[in-house]
Amino acid sequence: MRAELISVGTELLLGQITDTNAAFLARVLAEHGVDLYFKQTVGDNPARIQQAVRLALERADLVVMTGGLGPTEDDLTVAAVADLLGLPLVERPEAREHIRTFFETRRRPAPASVYKQALLPQGARLIPNRRGTAPGVAITHGQATIVILPGVPAEMEAMVEDFLLPWLRERTGGQVIRSRILRVTGLGESAVEERIKDLLAMTTPTVAPYAKLGEVHLRLTAKGTPEAVAAALDEGERLVRARLGDLVYGVDEETLEGVVGELLRRRGLTLAVGESCTGGLITDRLTDIPGSSAYLRLGVVAYSNDAKTALLGVPPELLARHGGVSPQVAAAMAAGARRAGGADLGLGVTGIAGPSGGTAEKPVGLVYLALTDGVEERVEEVRFGAAPGRRAIKVLTSQAALNLLRLHLLRASRVPG
Amino acid sequence: MRAELISVGTELLLGQITDTNAAFLARVLAEHGVDLYFKQTVGDNPARIQQAVRLALERADLVVMTGGLGPTEDDLTVAAVADLLGLPLVERPEAREHIRTFFETRRRPAPASVYKQALLPQGARLIPNRRGTAPGVAITHGQATIVILPGVPAEMEAMVEDFLLPWLRERTGGQVIRSRILRVTGLGESAVEERIKDLLAMTTPTVAPYAKLGEVHLRLTAKGTPEAVAAALDEGERLVRARLGDLVYGVDEETLEGVVGELLRRRGLTLAVGESCTGGLITDRLTDIPGSSAYLRLGVVAYSNDAKTALLGVPPELLARHGGVSPQVAAAMAAGARRAGGADLGLGVTGIAGPSGGTAEKPVGLVYLALTDGVEERVEEVRFGAAPGRRAIKVLTSQAALNLLRLHLLRASRVPG
Repeated sequence: MRAELISVGTELLLGQITDTNAAFLARVLAEHGVDLYFKQTVGDNPARIQQAVRLALERADLVVMTGGLGPTEDDLTVAAVADLLGLPLVERPEAREHIRTFFETRRRPAPASVYKQALLPQGARLIPNRRGTAPGVAITHGQATIVILPGVPAEMEAMVEDFLLPWLRERTGGQVIRSRILRVTGLGESAVEERIKDLLAMTTPTVAPYAKLGEVHLRLTAKGTPEAVAAALDEGERLVRARLGDLVYGVDEETLEGVVGELLRRRGLTLAVGESCTGGLITDRLTDIPGSSAYLRLGVVAYSNDAKTALLGVPPELLARHGGVSPQVAAAMAAGARRAGGADLGLGVTGIAGPSGGTAEKPVGLVYLALTDGVEERVEEVRFGAAPGRRAIKVLTSQAALNLLRLHLLRASRVPG
Repeated sequence: MRAELISVGTELLLGQITDTNAAFLARVLAEHGVDLYFKQTVGDNPARIQQAVRLALERADLVVMTGGLGPTEDDLTVAAVADLLGLPLVERPEAREHIRTFFETRRRPAPASVYKQALLPQGARLIPNRRGTAPGVAITHGQATIVILPGVPAEMEAMVEDFLLPWLRERTGGQVIRSRILRVTGLGESAVEERIKDLLAMTTPTVAPYAKLGEVHLRLTAKGTPEAVAAALDEGERLVRARLGDLVYGVDEETLEGVVGELLRRRGLTLAVGESCTGGLITDRLTDIPGSSAYLRLGVVAYSNDAKTALLGVPPELLARHGGVSPQVAAAMAAGARRAGGADLGLGVTGIAGPSGGTAEKPVGLVYLALTDGVEERVEEVRFGAAPGRRAIKVLTSQAALNLLRLHLLRASRVPG
């Protein structure tokens, strides 16, 4: 099957919004092995919408359109397509009823203009909208099918799930293309590539690295029956893990803070964090995980030396002798956070996020991380350099600190306790 | 002038990346009053690239292409266009020299394939690449111009600045379309619209509201000479501010944390923050601003009652009587943070981010914010409901807390002191 996408909306051509719908739909098509050779974007103009559809019908058997289904005068997609195909618009009672109920349950008056959304081309299939008022439309035209979806991403995505996915599965003979992402942290992109160099030449699955801030994503992709694809992805994951081991922290949508939280929860351990340069980002990430109150006892953001002493008990002599950014102070912050929070583990982070405050000896991007469980302590020095900029240095530091914690928890869990 | 955009790259049609370049270029064209009616996306395939260019040349006098300028076999854009127009490729010594130097200064060997980027269509204008190796290309073809830019956003944007902007200014007779964004927080979208309803009908400038998480952006847009546009935007801003007053917290790229930081800095005041449900997000945002160490004394993330008592001095009786999520505890956290940090101002935040932990009396999304300067204290209750979800509740809460602080600092600064 060959598909073509048409995004409709003047706001896209004015650059007021980025077309994320197109990327979403492209992924859906790719996962089903549907070829997508062209994508068009047009404004809210009937003649140009028709020109785009005419062209797409010449070169594709599935045309997926998004946008222009709203209630305003600018929303012209359905009428333009109906006119092009010579189909009269007919009011669909179920669509009208859905719109009426939608407003009634929200106790808002339905503006008269909204009922225009109940007009569909004669003979078209109506795709219900469970998140909004405008129904989607599927039209069979000769050998081709035209699917028109709303531009609101949540509404569009629900219709893809409800209608387009089953429709595609029926027509692609059960062949799927699926990807799995292995998330790697603690090693740079080129070092990761070096270790898996030969795997990059595999075809089942293919392995493609993508560098992200503080991590590398390895995208494994395979095509075939769902069973064959699952087996290929499992085998690919096994091969990658054999090379990278603990550097793989998660799969697909897993986050580092989620993985760390799960390890803390399973081990029944609590944590306290003393942060300087990250300014609260570490606890912000940890507390994005529901239920994190079970293991996160305390966070202290101690930028100043006074706060480091008063709240984390960092001795003033230590600060005077080594400076706020030093392995000694990081360790004292970790121990102080652990003590103040009455936690099992203490994490301490100090560094220079910049852009100012760096010296030749202690440049911007220099960071010290410390972790203690009250018996052992581990201190790491990392140098990110000034180039990434303040926000990225904060993110990279939080990533390295959470990874230090993760590796400790993994090792700890190996000792039968 | 009429323009058309062509994005080249199979990764776009596989949905692996979102086409942010197109939105950027669309904005540049819109700002110069250039009509953009169509955008096409094609994969790395010479025949389809040529088909797209042929179509674009039929309907536009400026064709801007991005992507496919790299050194690999997949990078075919320049060769495909040259072939379509019947222009031989000629090596440009200045491009070759630039590539050689680029690798030399980075002490990396230049792969032989990279020199392919020095081949340009005969007669084309070379656009230097100050951030990478591949030069851009501008070709005059009859009445039309084809501009080919790299797909790497930083390289593309530099060439827009160096080449496309001056080129457009020369040809659009000094007419520009410019926007200014007024950032509003503390009032919902429909309430904002209600207050400026009549301004939404203006044409010079136009005013369009966009709802964002925790804020509303009002985009003012005007067209004309740079002087007329500046005057129209100033007048529009004056009218909006007359209606919304202090609710407008910033302009264009200003952030709430940046505005708050600047107010603290100017007033010479210091701050300490006691956070519960926001988990460090407030201090994370504040410390994204360079120089924030001058005014942020301390942050404490006290999820547990123990930590609220131990570090912020919240009396256990208060916690027992009113619960951790209460106006009394928020106020005690603000006062405790101020005291522990030795700061002028204390901000306290407690609430239920969910998804669990809510009750009928204290549902998910209930938040208390408190601010004290040691003399006066202010406590606010906000109810976001459970629907936004945990992360959004954290963001909305941090926004409300920073806005409470901003409004206090604005009022404070009105008293001559």
